[in-house]
Amino acid sequence: MKLGIDLGGTSAKIALVDDHLKILKETSVLSSGNPQPSELVKKISLACLDLMNKKKISKVGVGVAGDIDFDKGVVRISPNLGWKKVPLKALFQKYLKAETIVDNDANVAAWGLYKTQVPSNIKNVIVMTLGTGVGGGIIIDGKLLRGATGSAGEIGHMNIEENGPVCNCGNRGCLETYIGRPHLVKKVIEGIKKGKKTSLSKIYKNNPADISPLAVSIAAKKGDAFAKSIWNEAGHMLGLAIGDLVYLLNPERIYFTGGVAQAKNLILTPLLKTLHQRTFKTPINAVKIQVAQNAPHIGVIGASLL
Amino acid sequence: MKLGIDLGGTSAKIALVDDHLKILKETSVLSSGNPQPSELVKKISLACLDLMNKKKISKVGVGVAGDIDFDKGVVRISPNLGWKKVPLKALFQKYLKAETIVDNDANVAAWGLYKTQVPSNIKNVIVMTLGTGVGGGIIIDGKLLRGATGSAGEIGHMNIEENGPVCNCGNRGCLETYIGRPHLVKKVIEGIKKGKKTSLSKIYKNNPADISPLAVSIAAKKGDAFAKSIWNEAGHMLGLAIGDLVYLLNPERIYFTGGVAQAKNLILTPLLKTLHQRTFKTPINAVKIQVAQNAPHIGVIGASLL
Repeated sequence: MKLGIDLGGTSAKIALVDDHLKILKETSVLSSGNPQPSELVKKISLACLDLMNKKKISKVGVGVAGDIDFDKGVVRISPNLGWKKVPLKALFQKYLKAETIVDNDANVAAWGLYKTQVPSNIKNVIVMTLGTGVGGGIIIDGKLLRGATGSAGEIGHMNIEENGPVCNCGNRGCLETYIGRPHLVKKVIEGIKKGKKTSLSKIYKNNPADISPLAVSIAAKKGDAFAKSIWNEAGHMLGLAIGDLVYLLNPERIYFTGGVAQAKNLILTPLLKTLHQRTFKTPINAVKIQVAQNAPHIGVIGASLL
Repeated sequence: MKLGIDLGGTSAKIALVDDHLKILKETSVLSSGNPQPSELVKKISLACLDLMNKKKISKVGVGVAGDIDFDKGVVRISPNLGWKKVPLKALFQKYLKAETIVDNDANVAAWGLYKTQVPSNIKNVIVMTLGTGVGGGIIIDGKLLRGATGSAGEIGHMNIEENGPVCNCGNRGCLETYIGRPHLVKKVIEGIKKGKKTSLSKIYKNNPADISPLAVSIAAKKGDAFAKSIWNEAGHMLGLAIGDLVYLLNPERIYFTGGVAQAKNLILTPLLKTLHQRTFKTPINAVKIQVAQNAPHIGVIGASLL
């Protein structure tokens, strides 16, 4: 029995996970509004103790959105929580009296997916979350790649086009600027404003907030050429990044999770077309690329396994 | 005492290496002109036996330029040797009666450099050879990364600019098209033909074959603005690729070897400038980037350590 905490900018999900990686009990605590670290950790710890019926917890894993010093268990910076240099491991150990391991949430989710959806003979895997942002986790030889400072796997900010669109990170042409949710939505709205012929115009006129990756997928599946072109470009750009990942890491599997990934073949088809234009066929033919099964709990499960 | 073979398209270097990774004896065998595999292996094996004074060899490591099936010891394809599907491990075992391990030459050289030049507490390293081609080897947690099919580390063919120059591999805008020796030389000659004011024009008129990375370095060091601009662009493009590598793998050290790398600060200065434009400072500040010590033997030493 293990305890996992998935701490994001909106809420902290907490779950008690059994040895077969099934969730026995779960709860959550609000974390929005830039909470004071020790206050939030105290609240989460109380919820954990509740979940355990006051039984002693010996080990806890925590996934946090942000730049994490894995060795020290310190949150270097978390824009989502508004935190800088927070000794999260020490705080949890103080309130929970349990050994705590802290890691980046994308790493933790990749690890949870690897442990729950990937056959155990597969050892080299990349997991990419395609959502508002684009995150990733890299598994090599069956181990999560952390690198020198726990910063490895920053796939969303690979440079795709030097003079490309401005990214939230401040650089230009990061992968995220082609495939991240707000960028896709912006591109659709720009097209509509330019007068592109598309069924999405009507949706936009009724309520601009209804323009979402899901709406673009539905339109594309109904044959809307503009909607299809949006996915074709996004898939192509993702294919350029995946080509580099395959050449560098030669993985056996790549999994996509997150809302944008639910476009499935609309994104996979152009992606694979671009990928197969690469010359060296051995690594290209060796990788299987797929959208992961819907798994809202991989974050907490991964955290429980840290 | 170990035996290593570094098998390229011109010659096979063979060396007997002691436990302190010093070369005790060495020899070489010509391998040019698309040799018949079993003939060449026989010749190399005889040279090995000579080197050993007919003493029995128990283990041999071989680095080969090409796409290698590491598990089976098969050369899938080696353009330099003109080989396809050559069971090199089986051939060496037949002629040398010794256990043989076969790997890609860039991997082997990276491993040799890692074992001879890198402090043993450093576990995450990238080695890049900047020469005619651009090759690489990636060391993670103190182990050489091979990936699913032994194809990992194909750094030279990372995509830098989708519509960039045509690469030898057939794709466009690979890193190699910005930093590989023939591409640098071509760019200089194009500049001279376009009438750029540069001291390299005189060298070109006397003998076009004298235009080399070394000549461009000498000119740049003497203040030639055109020569400097060549290195600035090459270093910038290399910096874009290094940025991705640092974000993905978060290495502690990156080493450059090969002829083009001898431009040293001419290439490192613009590289670091571009790298430090990236936003996430933790992995960027954690990596130390340097030109390796001159080490013509890292290939055979790495092979001996396979």
